[in-house]
Order: sequence, then C-alpha cells, then structure tokens
Amino acid sequence: MVYEVKSLNEECGVFGIWGHPQAAQVTYYGLHSLQHRGQEGAGIVANDAGTLRGHREKGLLSEVFKNPNDLDKLKGTAAIGHVRYATAGAADIRNIQPFLYKFHDGKYGLCHNGNLTNAISLKRELEKQGAIFNASSDTEILMHLIRRSHNPSFMGKVKEALNTVKGGFAYLLMTEDKLIAAMDPNGFRPLSIGQMKNGAWVVSSETCAFEVVGAEWIRDVNPGEVIIIDDTGIQYDTYTDDTQLAICSMEYVYFARPDSDIAGVNVHTARKRMGKKLAQEFKHEADIVVGVPNSSLSAAMGFAEESGLPNEMGLVKNQYTQRTFIQPTQELREQGVRMKLSAVSSVVKGKRVVMIDDSIVRGTTSRRIVQLLREAGAAEVHVAIGSPELKYPCFYGIDIQTRRELISANHTAEEVCEIIGADSLTYLSLGGMIEAIGLETDAPNGGLCVAYFDGKYPTPLYDYEEEYLRSLDEKTSFYIEKVKK
Amino acid sequence: MVYEVKSLNEECGVFGIWGHPQAAQVTYYGLHSLQHRGQEGAGIVANDAGTLRGHREKGLLSEVFKNPNDLDKLKGTAAIGHVRYATAGAADIRNIQPFLYKFHDGKYGLCHNGNLTNAISLKRELEKQGAIFNASSDTEILMHLIRRSHNPSFMGKVKEALNTVKGGFAYLLMTEDKLIAAMDPNGFRPLSIGQMKNGAWVVSSETCAFEVVGAEWIRDVNPGEVIIIDDTGIQYDTYTDDTQLAICSMEYVYFARPDSDIAGVNVHTARKRMGKKLAQEFKHEADIVVGVPNSSLSAAMGFAEESGLPNEMGLVKNQYTQRTFIQPTQELREQGVRMKLSAVSSVVKGKRVVMIDDSIVRGTTSRRIVQLLREAGAAEVHVAIGSPELKYPCFYGIDIQTRRELISANHTAEEVCEIIGADSLTYLSLGGMIEAIGLETDAPNGGLCVAYFDGKYPTPLYDYEEEYLRSLDEKTSFYIEKVKK
Amino acid sequence: MVYEVKSLNEECGVFGIWGHPQAAQVTYYGLHSLQHRGQEGAGIVANDAGTLRGHREKGLLSEVFKNPNDLDKLKGTAAIGHVRYATAGAADIRNIQPFLYKFHDGKYGLCHNGNLTNAISLKRELEKQGAIFNASSDTEILMHLIRRSHNPSFMGKVKEALNTVKGGFAYLLMTEDKLIAAMDPNGFRPLSIGQMKNGAWVVSSETCAFEVVGAEWIRDVNPGEVIIIDDTGIQYDTYTDDTQLAICSMEYVYFARPDSDIAGVNVHTARKRMGKKLAQEFKHEADIVVGVPNSSLSAAMGFAEESGLPNEMGLVKNQYTQRTFIQPTQELREQGVRMKLSAVSSVVKGKRVVMIDDSIVRGTTSRRIVQLLREAGAAEVHVAIGSPELKYPCFYGIDIQTRRELISANHTAEEVCEIIGADSLTYLSLGGMIEAIGLETDAPNGGLCVAYFDGKYPTPLYDYEEEYLRSLDEKTSFYIEKVKK
Amino acid sequence: MVYEVKSLNEECGVFGIWGHPQAAQVTYYGLHSLQHRGQEGAGIVANDAGTLRGHREKGLLSEVFKNPNDLDKLKGTAAIGHVRYATAGAADIRNIQPFLYKFHDGKYGLCHNGNLTNAISLKRELEKQGAIFNASSDTEILMHLIRRSHNPSFMGKVKEALNTVKGGFAYLLMTEDKLIAAMDPNGFRPLSIGQMKNGAWVVSSETCAFEVVGAEWIRDVNPGEVIIIDDTGIQYDTYTDDTQLAICSMEYVYFARPDSDIAGVNVHTARKRMGKKLAQEFKHEADIVVGVPNSSLSAAMGFAEESGLPNEMGLVKNQYTQRTFIQPTQELREQGVRMKLSAVSSVVKGKRVVMIDDSIVRGTTSRRIVQLLREAGAAEVHVAIGSPELKYPCFYGIDIQTRRELISANHTAEEVCEIIGADSLTYLSLGGMIEAIGLETDAPNGGLCVAYFDGKYPTPLYDYEEEYLRSLDEKTSFYIEKVKK
Repeated sequence: MVYEVKSLNEECGVFGIWGHPQAAQVTYYGLHSLQHRGQEGAGIVANDAGTLRGHREKGLLSEVFKNPNDLDKLKGTAAIGHVRYATAGAADIRNIQPFLYKFHDGKYGLCHNGNLTNAISLKRELEKQGAIFNASSDTEILMHLIRRSHNPSFMGKVKEALNTVKGGFAYLLMTEDKLIAAMDPNGFRPLSIGQMKNGAWVVSSETCAFEVVGAEWIRDVNPGEVIIIDDTGIQYDTYTDDTQLAICSMEYVYFARPDSDIAGVNVHTARKRMGKKLAQEFKHEADIVVGVPNSSLSAAMGFAEESGLPNEMGLVKNQYTQRTFIQPTQELREQGVRMKLSAVSSVVKGKRVVMIDDSIVRGTTSRRIVQLLREAGAAEVHVAIGSPELKYPCFYGIDIQTRRELISANHTAEEVCEIIGADSLTYLSLGGMIEAIGLETDAPNGGLCVAYFDGKYPTPLYDYEEEYLRSLDEKTSFYIEKVKK
Repeated sequence: MVYEVKSLNEECGVFGIWGHPQAAQVTYYGLHSLQHRGQEGAGIVANDAGTLRGHREKGLLSEVFKNPNDLDKLKGTAAIGHVRYATAGAADIRNIQPFLYKFHDGKYGLCHNGNLTNAISLKRELEKQGAIFNASSDTEILMHLIRRSHNPSFMGKVKEALNTVKGGFAYLLMTEDKLIAAMDPNGFRPLSIGQMKNGAWVVSSETCAFEVVGAEWIRDVNPGEVIIIDDTGIQYDTYTDDTQLAICSMEYVYFARPDSDIAGVNVHTARKRMGKKLAQEFKHEADIVVGVPNSSLSAAMGFAEESGLPNEMGLVKNQYTQRTFIQPTQELREQGVRMKLSAVSSVVKGKRVVMIDDSIVRGTTSRRIVQLLREAGAAEVHVAIGSPELKYPCFYGIDIQTRRELISANHTAEEVCEIIGADSLTYLSLGGMIEAIGLETDAPNGGLCVAYFDGKYPTPLYDYEEEYLRSLDEKTSFYIEKVKK
Repeated sequence: MVYEVKSLNEECGVFGIWGHPQAAQVTYYGLHSLQHRGQEGAGIVANDAGTLRGHREKGLLSEVFKNPNDLDKLKGTAAIGHVRYATAGAADIRNIQPFLYKFHDGKYGLCHNGNLTNAISLKRELEKQGAIFNASSDTEILMHLIRRSHNPSFMGKVKEALNTVKGGFAYLLMTEDKLIAAMDPNGFRPLSIGQMKNGAWVVSSETCAFEVVGAEWIRDVNPGEVIIIDDTGIQYDTYTDDTQLAICSMEYVYFARPDSDIAGVNVHTARKRMGKKLAQEFKHEADIVVGVPNSSLSAAMGFAEESGLPNEMGLVKNQYTQRTFIQPTQELREQGVRMKLSAVSSVVKGKRVVMIDDSIVRGTTSRRIVQLLREAGAAEVHVAIGSPELKYPCFYGIDIQTRRELISANHTAEEVCEIIGADSLTYLSLGGMIEAIGLETDAPNGGLCVAYFDGKYPTPLYDYEEEYLRSLDEKTSFYIEKVKK
Repeated sequence: MVYEVKSLNEECGVFGIWGHPQAAQVTYYGLHSLQHRGQEGAGIVANDAGTLRGHREKGLLSEVFKNPNDLDKLKGTAAIGHVRYATAGAADIRNIQPFLYKFHDGKYGLCHNGNLTNAISLKRELEKQGAIFNASSDTEILMHLIRRSHNPSFMGKVKEALNTVKGGFAYLLMTEDKLIAAMDPNGFRPLSIGQMKNGAWVVSSETCAFEVVGAEWIRDVNPGEVIIIDDTGIQYDTYTDDTQLAICSMEYVYFARPDSDIAGVNVHTARKRMGKKLAQEFKHEADIVVGVPNSSLSAAMGFAEESGLPNEMGLVKNQYTQRTFIQPTQELREQGVRMKLSAVSSVVKGKRVVMIDDSIVRGTTSRRIVQLLREAGAAEVHVAIGSPELKYPCFYGIDIQTRRELISANHTAEEVCEIIGADSLTYLSLGGMIEAIGLETDAPNGGLCVAYFDGKYPTPLYDYEEEYLRSLDEKTSFYIEKVKK
C-alpha cells in the first residue's frame, strides 16, 4: 500500500522522569503522547532505589504493556522510556530500548533518539578490541565507550563518550542514583525539560507530553549540553562548546505533534504560518482549500485564512486503519476499492481544489490523492506543499538515507507536477519556510537544519560521506516509468 | 473515563452486495468504512450459489477477520455484513450479526440497524407460542414472524412481518437467490443503494462506503420500501403506504461520517452550515474558534468562515487511543495526567475561545474540555453547540433511552453553562438546525426526526410508552451535586 | 497425519453440581478430568439464586477459561458444564454447550452427551411448526419439545420430551430452582452420581471426576431415569419403564479414563482383564509385550502378567503433541521424520514383539506402528487387539457413522493382517471381551452394546435405518489400494 | 502447587544439523523430541550459505514457532537449536538461545547445555576489561573468550576458550562454514552424533531425536572432545586430555526420555533394571506395584517383574495439565479438589501398595501421593525409590543448588518416611544404582557423577566452593514443621 504510507519516518521518542512515586506510570503516559514518533516497539526502565527493572516489547505501547502487571512491576521513583521506529530489517526485540545493563559494579538504562554518523567505524574499531554488540542499533556504542573509558570519574567517562560519537542524538541514561540527558552539538533532535506539580523533573522529545502528564515546560536542552538530575535537583553542564543550532526543520513540517512547542515555537502555529506563506506564493485561481489529513490540516487552515478561500473537508481519513490486516487484492484495487482515504464527491465535485500537503517524498501518495480528487469530480487539482523540494538524504535520524527514494532528487517541479497528474504544483520556498517557522536566533538558516532541501550539511558526514557522494550521481527513472504505464 | 467517551451511540451499520466475484472482500471494505457505527462486533454472511456461510466475532472488524482464512472461506458472489454497537450487558457473541439460519427448506442471512418499539410484546407473544429466541437483540423477531406467517408466497411472508414490527429499522435479508433490503415507514435510519463498475448492486448504511468500494450512488431507500435484488436486477417494491419521512437528525449532527450524503445532503456540508448558523446566533466577543476533534471540525470551519475569527487547533486528540488498556489512576488524574485530549497552551493562552462541539449529552465531557482550555490559559471559554438541547430519549436506535442521562432534560441552558464552567453557552436553535440541514421535502420538521429535542415522536411508542411517560417526571440533580464538589 | 489420530471419538462429557459455594470452580475441575471426552469446546452455566450465567468457547477448557474473570463471574451454588467433541463441519461457537435459555417466564441451562436417532425428523417437524433452531446439534430439540408441550406441570413437560427423543443421551438440565439429570432407556452413555463432603450433589459422565473434586460415588444413573436435585435433596424418578441395559462397550475398550468405574467395574481393571483374555487367546511365540501408549498400557500389563512375557516400553509417545502447529512436510515424512510416536530400537531390536492395541478403526495407525517397530529392528510384530473387529457404525454417540471408515467392515482379519504388515493379528473374541468386562447383570451381551462388533442394535434406528441399510452394501477397496502403492 | 511440580529440572537441550535442505525443519522436530529438557523458551539459528538467521521466543516450541513463517524464513542447509529451562528470575527473552552474533568479520550462532562453575569470576574479569554481557546466562562467556583470544587460528581461539571455562557443558557453535560441538572434560551432559539417510550429520542432547528425525546413531561425543562438521565431513578433535568420564546419573534416573540411549545404555532399560534391583533390596510384604506416572513406569515394570507382584495403574495423571491457568483455591484444595494426579480407589482399596518413584527432592510430592493413596483406601503404602538419597547440590547443570531444598540433606530415611507418612521407605543403594545403569567403563562410580548422593564432586567447584561449604552447615527444619501442622 505504498501510496498510503508516508515513506518518511522519525526515529524514536524518549521520555524520562526523576522524583515521582509512580514514575513508570507517568512515563507510560508520556510515551503514549510520543507514540507518533515510533510504533515499532517501546520500553521502560524504572529505578527503584537503585534497583533497575525493565520491560520492552515489539508493537504499540498498548501492546507492549497489555498486561497491567508489566507496568506494575516497574516500581520506583525514576524511569526512562522509549518508543521506536525502525526499518523493516531491524525489527528485532534486541533493538527495542531502553537497554538495561547489569554489571558487577553498576546498573544502567539507556535510550536514544537520533542517528550517529560514525557508528560503523566506531563499531568496527570496538569489535577489533573484543567488544560484542548485541543489537544492530547505534545506541549501545555509547555504553561501550563509557565502559572502556579510562577517565577516573563517571561523568568524565560519559563526556568522553559523548565527544566520541558524532551525528544527531538525544540520549537518556539512567544510573542507580541519577538521570542524565544529553544533546548533540547541533540540537538536531528536540528534547525539553519540564517539572510536575510535585517537583518531579521530566524530559521529553516533545512538549506535548508535558500537557499530558500535567508538567510545566522549563526549557529545552541546548546543543552540547549534558544534564544531570538527582535527588539534589537539576544541574546543567556541557560536554563541548563547539556547537551550532540546527534543529531538524522536518519536525515542524511533519513529525512533531501540532500541540508541541520546539525552541519556543508551537508546531501548529508554525504550520499555519507555512500555509499563509504558501498562499502568498501560490499563483493560481481556485475555489476551495482541502488539506490532506491529518498532518496538513494546520497548513490548510492558514492557507484558507490568507487566501480567503473556504477550507473544506474534501478528503476523509478512516480512523480505524491502524490495525487492518486484510488489504484489497490488486484486482479489487483496480476496481477502485480503497480503505484509508476517501475523497468527498459532494464537496469537491466541479470545484477547483487547492490540495495542501506537507511534503512530497516519493510522489506516489500525492499522485494517488490527486487521482482520488479527480475521480470524485474535482475540476482542477492544484497541489500546494508546505515545504521546499526534498532533494537530499538525512543522516541525523530521519529515514531518508538515499536519494533514490526522493522524487525531487531526480525531477524538476514541472516533471513532478506531470508525474503526479496535478494542474499545478507549488512548493513553499526555503526562505518562506524559515521565515514561517521564525526561530529567534542568529544561527544560519534561522537555526534550522535544511540539508534535505539544499544539501548543505551542518556537520561532516563521517561514515556516510562516501555514500552521500555516490548518491549525487544516482539517476533513477523509477517514477517516469511508473507514469508511462 | 466518563469525560472522554461520548455517551451517545449509534446502533449498527449494514452493508450488502449482489453480483461480485469477491463479494465478501468488498463487504469487508464496505463495513470498514462503517466501523464508526459499531465497534463491538462484526460479521459477514456470503452466498455461494445458494450455499450460505458466515463468520462473526466480537471486536473491531480487523479483529473479527484477523485470520485471512476467515474471509477467504466466505466464497460467493453476494454477501451481507454488519458492524454492531451494543450496551455492555449484551456483549455476547450470540448477538453479533448477521444471523445465519439453516432450515430444512431454506437458508437465510439477516442483519438489522435500528430499534423496534414493540419488540418486548412481540417476543412474549411468540414465546407463549413456543418460540425460542437465541439472542437478546430484536433482530431475530423478524425471522420468527416470517417463519410463522401463513402467507403463501415468500415475499408475502416478508411483507407481513415488516408490517408487524414497529420502530426504526433497516433490514438486510439474504436468501439463497436474492438480497432483500427494507426500510421502516419513517426512514429513521439511513440506507442507500449504489452500483459498482461491474454492475454489482450494493446497499449501505452510509454512502461513504460507496466511495471506498468504488461504487456509484443510485438512490436512497425510501420509507416503507422493500427492495429485491437478484440475478435479474433490482426491483423497488413497498410493503406499506402509511409513511412519513423523519430521518434521524443526529446522523447529521454526530453519527455519520462527514463524507457521507444522506437524502442528498453531504454531512460535512450540513455541519459546516450548522457552524455558520451558529455563528449567526452567537452573541459574544471572541478571538479564536476551536473545534472539539474530530466530530466538530466541520462546524468549526463554518463558524470561523461566517464569523471571520481564525480557526485554530487549540485541542489535539491523541490518535492512538483506541486500544489503551492502562488508564491513569485516580491519583495521577488529579495530578493532571490525561491521555486522550490535550489543550494547546501556546495556541489558547490569553485568548477568548469559542469552543465548538456538536452536542451535550451528560455535560461531563464539555465540563472537562472547558477546564482543559482554562488550565491551558484561555482567557474566556464560550461554548457553542451545533445542535439544540438534548432533552428526550430516543427509541428508534440511538442509545439514549432515559432522560436521566441528559443534562438538558433537567437543567436550563443557564444552569448547564454554570455546571460546565463556561463563560457562555449557545445552542443552535431547532429552526436553525433544520434550515442548515436543508432537506428538500414538505414533511414536518424538514423531514427530520427531532424528537430528542422537542419530545414530539413521529410514531406511537408501543412498549416504550409507559417508560417515556415515567421519564417525564424524573428530576435528577446529579450534575448540580457534581458541581458543588 | 491420519496415522496418528485415532479416528474414533467420543461425543462429549457432562458435569453438574448442586449445593456448593464455588459451584463453577468445582465444575471446572470436574470438566478438566473429562477433557479426554471432548477437546473442541467447553462451557459452564452457573445458577446464582435463580440468576443463570454462562460462559462457553471453542478450544480446551484451559483456553475457554484462560481469563480467570470468565470463571469468577459465574457465581452461584449450582452449575452444569460440558466438554464437546465434534466433527469438523460443526466447529461453531453456537454448538458449544451448555445452552442458556432466557424466556420471559423462566431460565434454563441444558447440555447433552449422546446422539439422537430421530433428530432429523423431529427437527423437520418442529421447523414446519415455525420453530427456529440455532445450533446444528441435536441438543436443543429437547428444549423445543419442553416449551411446546401442553402438559400442565414442568416435570410432565420434561418427561413428555424425554419420551419423544430416541437414541443415546445423558442430559443435564439446570432450571432456576433445580438440577435435572436424565438417561436414555438403554443407558448407552455413562452418568454417575456422587456427593461431596459438604453435602453437595454432583453428576458426572465419569467417576474419575469424583476423585478429582473429592466426592464419593453414590450410584450410577439407570436407564430411563430422570433425577431431580434441589435444596430439599435428591429424588430418583423414571420417565419410562421400557428399558434394557446396553452400556457402550467402547467406553471400557477405549474412551473412558482408566481410573473411572462404570456400572461398578473399574476401566483399568477391565482392560487388564481384556489383556489377560487376549493372552489366553493368543497363539504365537514372542519375546516381549509392547503396549501402544497411552490407551493400551493396561491391556499390555494384563497380557504380560498372563503370558509371563516381559512388558517393555518399546513405543514412546511425545507428551508435547497437543499443540504442534507445524507438521513435517511430505518430503520430510518420507525421510522418516515423525513427531508423536517413537519405537525404541534398543528395546525392540531383534525381538519378537507382541504389540497390544485397543482397537483397529481404519488400520492406518496400526500399519504405521507396525512399520515403526520393524524399522527399529523388531524381528517379528504380532498385533493383538483388546476388542473384536469393528464392523458396523454407531448411532448412539460415537463418531463412526459409516462403514467405509472401518477396515474390518470390508476385510477379513487375514486381509487386515496383511494390510497392516503384521506377522500375525489376533482380535479378542466377543465373548472374551464381555467376560473380561464382567458386568453383574442378566441383560443380553452382559449388559453391553456391542453393535459395532455384531451389527445387532438394541433399538430401532429411526432416521438412520436407511443409512444403515445402504452402508451394508458399501464395498470400499480403499485400503487394499493403499497397500499396493 | 508445590506437590505436583518436580523441583528438579534439567537445564536445556541442544540439537544441530549440517547438510540437509530443510535444516531448520529437521531441527524443529529434533527439538520437539527434546522439549522435556526445557519448556521456558526455544530457538533456532539456521545457516543459509553463510547467512545466519535466527528465531527465538519464550514458551514451548509450538508457541515459539506458532507462525509457520517463523520457521520458513530460517532457510539453509545447517542449523542449531535449543530448548531452555530456567529459574523464574531469568525468564527473559535475552536468555533464550541460540545466540546470534553478527560481527563485521564473521557471524556465529551459539547454544549451550550445562552450567559453568567459574562463570562469576570470568564475567567479573571480562567486565573489568570493558566487556558488556547482554544476557544473564553463562553461555555468552564462551564468545567473549573466543573474541578476545590472541590465538592466530579460529579453532585455536575456540580451544583456548574451552580450556578456560569450567563445569558441565555441551556447546554447539555454528559459524558461516562449519558446525562445532564441544563436550566438557567429564562428559556430564549427554551429546550424541547421528547421521541421516541423505548423509546429513546431526548432534543431539538425546538419541530419542534421532529416532524422530530418521537418523542413525553414530557415537556419543566424548569428554574433552571438540568436533567439527563441514561440507568435507566430520572431524573428531580434542581440546584437552585431562578428562574423566562422569555422566550425570540423574539423566538415567529422571531427566532423559526412556527411548534415549546414553553411553550405549537405554534409559528405559536402565530404569527397569533399577526397579529390579530395588525389588531385590525391598524388604516388605505387599500386594501390588504402582508406579508414579510418567517417570517411574519403567522402574515399576522392573519391580513387578522381579517381585512377581502385579503392576497396577493405581495412579492416573491427567494428560491435559500443561496449560491450566486456573488452580483450585486453598479452600477447594482442602476439600480435596485436585487436578493433576488421581489415585484409583477401585485399584488400590484394601491393598498393600508398593509406590515406585524415581527420587525424592523436597518430599512434598511424595507425601501428597502417599496421602492420595491412603484416601483412596490403600491398606499400606510402601514407598520405594529408584535412586539413593539426594543430599548434595549439583553445580553442573541441574537446578538443585542449595541443600535447603533437599529433604535428605537434613533428615534420615526414617525421618523422611515419617514425614511423608509412608509405612516404609526404601531407597535404591548407590551400588545398586551404578550396577543397574551398568556402563562399560573403568572410571570411578561406573563412569557416573553421583555427587548429589555422596557429595564427592569429580571436579573443583571454583566459584561455588564457598557456597557449597556454607550449605553443609544449613540445618533447615522446614519439613518437620510442615508435618507438625
């Protein structure tokens, strides 16, 4: 069902808490609000006065903890949790986090959101020294580095390890007596700190979790920071000064929940402003605005408000699609049977529709939705995208690691417009997007990482350098062939 | 979790097909688009050249057919299917439809959406004659009546039975050689007829299923009609002329999917017009419009467009709530931990909010959402409801059979406003609602049943007469007490 | 896996209790000891001071009640329960017993072990009168007859119904204020009465349940009896005097547990005596005795004791076979891969083996085991069967309703010996078996039904008469063809 | 349910194969026949021309591979598999074997039956050097040792590692191009080599697997051997000459399947001889012999044959006990409700019974069975045990690691007799047992490890030395107190 699955995936969400009598329960609710960041697996490690216990499993959080005992046994006043997205090949219980380590001289829980750019060479080097990696994820590299460090203090070991790994990362590390949170030097992945009414400290990939667990936002974790929370309070430290803010712009465009704030900017509001900017840059006549549910509804609101066109529910998503095992046969699909998204004839018939979407990855989804709208009687379909053309892979934690999967890596906007069968195709300009997000910072690109749009990566690429260069020469004709059929 | 579950439930959806080589598969997709009408159980009976086979189970459709074999074994070119909502007490596999009957002289599949008003007296009478009822639902009464009829022709028996049952009903009856659809004399419940590209006939509780299975809408089934579909085509017949159109208005307000059309009126469009009417009747100053997701988003669009106020995503619903077994403890809930709905501080802080909802049943949900918005910093919360005050029970298929569950049965709008803690409370007027829906008909109340609003039932109440009269005297002070706490 | 599944199945076991605070729990344990009589489904109906509640499901008892709540909710001081065996086609939840009936004027639970011989004509007659049957089993016929009876008293209705049904049956009927047990006029199926230490009355298909629940055996239910248990005690009544004892001899041979007593004769002891008789009738030289596990171990003990040959474990059954979903491919099977039964080379190598089995149905199992023993190095394999040749179908509750499935219906013992590849084949004589069982009675055939051996049925066959006569002409060459391959 | 669970458990079974097109399938059947050696988890790693894939899960084999795809995806011509028993605390998926290692320079599958005696100190030492252990089992120590070895050849590394670990072990190690099997220097755990008809080599913890997969036994793996199987054939090598045969005698007494041969001696035959010896040593008058099912049936056969007493089925085990989640409440248990084992009144009533069991661990089971027999009417109960008194813990792979769990560690046979309520208690003498097993060897104790009986361990105890010495002083009065109640 290629056309209905967004081929763009965040890699994980993390949540941690220190100082609450029902720490694992609160972590459960926090993770529940981060479920959109990873549906493949989840887990929690709780700290019960120095005793660490964990539970993790494949599936949605509700499946992972379907037996209430699994949560109840995670006693203690501190916890960390993780929801995981992963590529198909790595769907193994061993990769589900947090990892729980029980050494003769200490116990640790560890989880991670992001992607290391020097993981392959670090792993190889460590294996040559006799290290055995259990999972295929990058995460446990940090623990190997900590355990092998000769630095005399524990925090010294941790900082040494953080300076050795490269790329995008937000780590949570639970020890017997403290909770440590660390952010990469560019702040690629979001991580915020909050406080509950009872004084408990919480950290979360997104602030939407604070609303859910009744916590107040305190501040975001800054690039290069390592934060230590224990019974004496919170301590803000840094492991490097060589930092430069480059928040993943796709968090605003697509990944984050609309009710989260990143770097002080609300995601819904940013998207609505993208919709307004897009309306300003849009050059065509139209009758109604239709957002692709659910990620583009905010942008559609902004576009409608700015353009004065009515915002209509011309596409409806079936809310019961999460767990349907039975898919239409090819034959039925050709007869028009589809399950997840419907165009509403009585709304779009005879209308010139502006179809708002957040981004185009492979183009197959857009093409399918344009076709749905036409079959439902739309007179014209003008596609307007709330972000610029996706042309380059990401190596910091989003699952687009090859240009072959990106239609815009190989095709001009005009070609894409033709391929998806639209009457026109408008992308939001890079400047327009940066302005719409509107972070208060002097950093380049308004403090955002926009490398997938312009190919300018804010860091060296290490193990991916070669892969990246090779990808520049890839010329796939995949989609054009598809269209010819 | 009273405050997050709408205490208002449709009773069931039906789908039928005749003339398609993958009839059960198509029925599966049709039912999937009707899943919102019933999540407690589902089933399909397929007709394979006169051999009828069935499968039914408790749970969502995806659970009922989680083993693909269950669907594959339902061979044949015709099928009927059902999704069921039911009150807790009756959650028994025996009540899951369609029922499959295998007599020595014939086989039948039967399913039903609606509620009979003379079921109790019919059952008692039949039992006295030796009849044994298997399920506790009303549905099988029809089969007993057909089997006991002395009318010489089969269609004569069916019509006799249809004239004996009273209330709201849409029946699908599969025989070995035809598919029969029947509508009550008032057309309370929606039922539409469509045709697929290959000529197959489909019937469905809602037209959204036609979009999903690639069928074209032909027409709705009229009050008092009995329709026969077989290999020779479709035949429109009637079993009574004593009819009067009274479509359930709550279908437009809350139950039906926005992409369905009922009696030629699109549901999203009707809701948007209710929002516009509501904006005209609304008398207060405000800054932003916030719809309660998901049912009130259309009305919010209409309100925003008419009022010129910006439409904002000030409330966000977690999309992963369907299957969460672990609920916050009372203690956590008091600490502010909640799972399903969040108010977005950065959107509503300091704003005068118009909160749009479709209806108020018990008032607990509204009160909770008002509180969420206030905690998130809203300066004022003005509640605007897209329908009039719900004051009377329904006996035709909606699960509000006692006035004690309806806050407006006992309280004035002013009292309700105070109870839910809003700054103001505006209901759409009855006339406004009828006008917004705007059916083309000369029937009273614009062809709608509005009895829950005005207590004027379009039919005698039979077995419920006494219950109804008793309910008029019920004076519960349930909510006022709640508020005093 | 034809060769490892005994194509001979009992149809069901029943258990009932009156007067115990944990009636459903005790019933669970009672049924657990009757699990061998039916693994396809199970259920319990409990009586809580006149309120009847039930739970039933497909699968083993442990699956049916895998959620402890399912049992806990069955409150009350009386209960009836059922384990069901059924032919594949009827594996439907609707057939799982006990059935629970809720009429406006009374509630009933009903379950049944046996088979009616006039079910088809009774059903047809009742359907013509408007009756609707829910399940495909015979059981509900009794309830239809009771409900339609014009006899003024309830027990009068029950007796009238019992006199209308024909064949083999042991019924348990729970009403709001009593538990009724009834036996067919021949006592085909076993049913015993016991009493617990607290005075509670129990009825069970086999006395092994009494040992498990700590009850003392009181007496067996006699042919033509109807027994009423209520708070005032137990009452032995009869509904007919036209009775003649004909206990199913296969209960002793194969079905019943060795620790049960039927008509005062212990099953293990009867089997051991059959083994001794068989040894007396056996005419060959041999070195060791090997019983086919588990049903033939008692007979093997008897044979060894009588013959003086050592009893050896030359065949071992894997005890983990109940739930293996993965079966060897045909290819692996040809390579000798097998899962359930192993011959032990070090025990049988070079030995002349007497292989003891209880009966031969299709011959495929015996043939396979003979082959296993030969492959393991047995010098000779002499098959000795603890019962006579199975030649005729059973219509009273055992699943052999066609002669085509019985190798001895079509083949002489010499032919069978050749087909199964044995060096010799000895059946226990009919007289030997009757003597070994040794009931104290003057009834024909020592009070046993031996119709499958001699074709002389103790009752008219009603609806099966024609089928039986037709079967006499069936001459299948199925097995001979198999052997030629 | 203490009294029905044998507190004596084997730790695991292994199976491997090289050279069969359906290697994983054959491994599945092999493991299925070893299921009695471990029910907590299972797994298979298959080798598909150098690509290693694995699947492992908690539960019985049938649960682990309940989805046929899980087995089908394990393509390849070689495989190793494991069934695991484990103490409650370690029931974690991470401990389920085989482990699958994917290094940048090689892939390995590893599994293990046994227990290392220097695991704790090895782990600590390795962790100090930076090693991270994933599971809590001993098994992965071997891989750490191999990876850290500086020996230039791979087999050199393996042999170095095998010389470093101490205790009881049978390892299977799959590499990309060979299958390695290794046995500890005492041959504590059984491991045999066989060959299939197509030439494929198989290794298995027990020979019963060979019968199941159609393989011929070639020979057992000897103490100190390391065997390499690859496409060129099989190679027998040794890693140490410092060996002395000491096969675990409890394999013959209790663990192994009766159809397995260990060191050329069939287990059933050994048990039967133990029964005969026991009859010779038995000094009391009795009427019948009753074996405790299932482990003591062979010994009962031998006892009966030798003594001339009839062997009777006086105890019957319910064959459906594996998966019963619902257990009798304490109250019901006191009323005599029990589920797993029944005494047969009609068999034992008035009889002087010799009750044969294989061993006594805690005494609770024996006591319970004696009581069952008495309640069923046995006149006298003489307990005869097919092995000597269990007095000392085992550190080589059986789960009796503390003397506190062994009733005979603290009580004389006379006291035990009184505690279990028997009329007499006879243990087989140590010499009798050794003679009955009858291995052809000059090694001490007839080549058997009998340390649990005489406290003389065939090796140093390393990390357990201290624990063992401490246990000698433990004087628990646990059972006497129990009896006083």
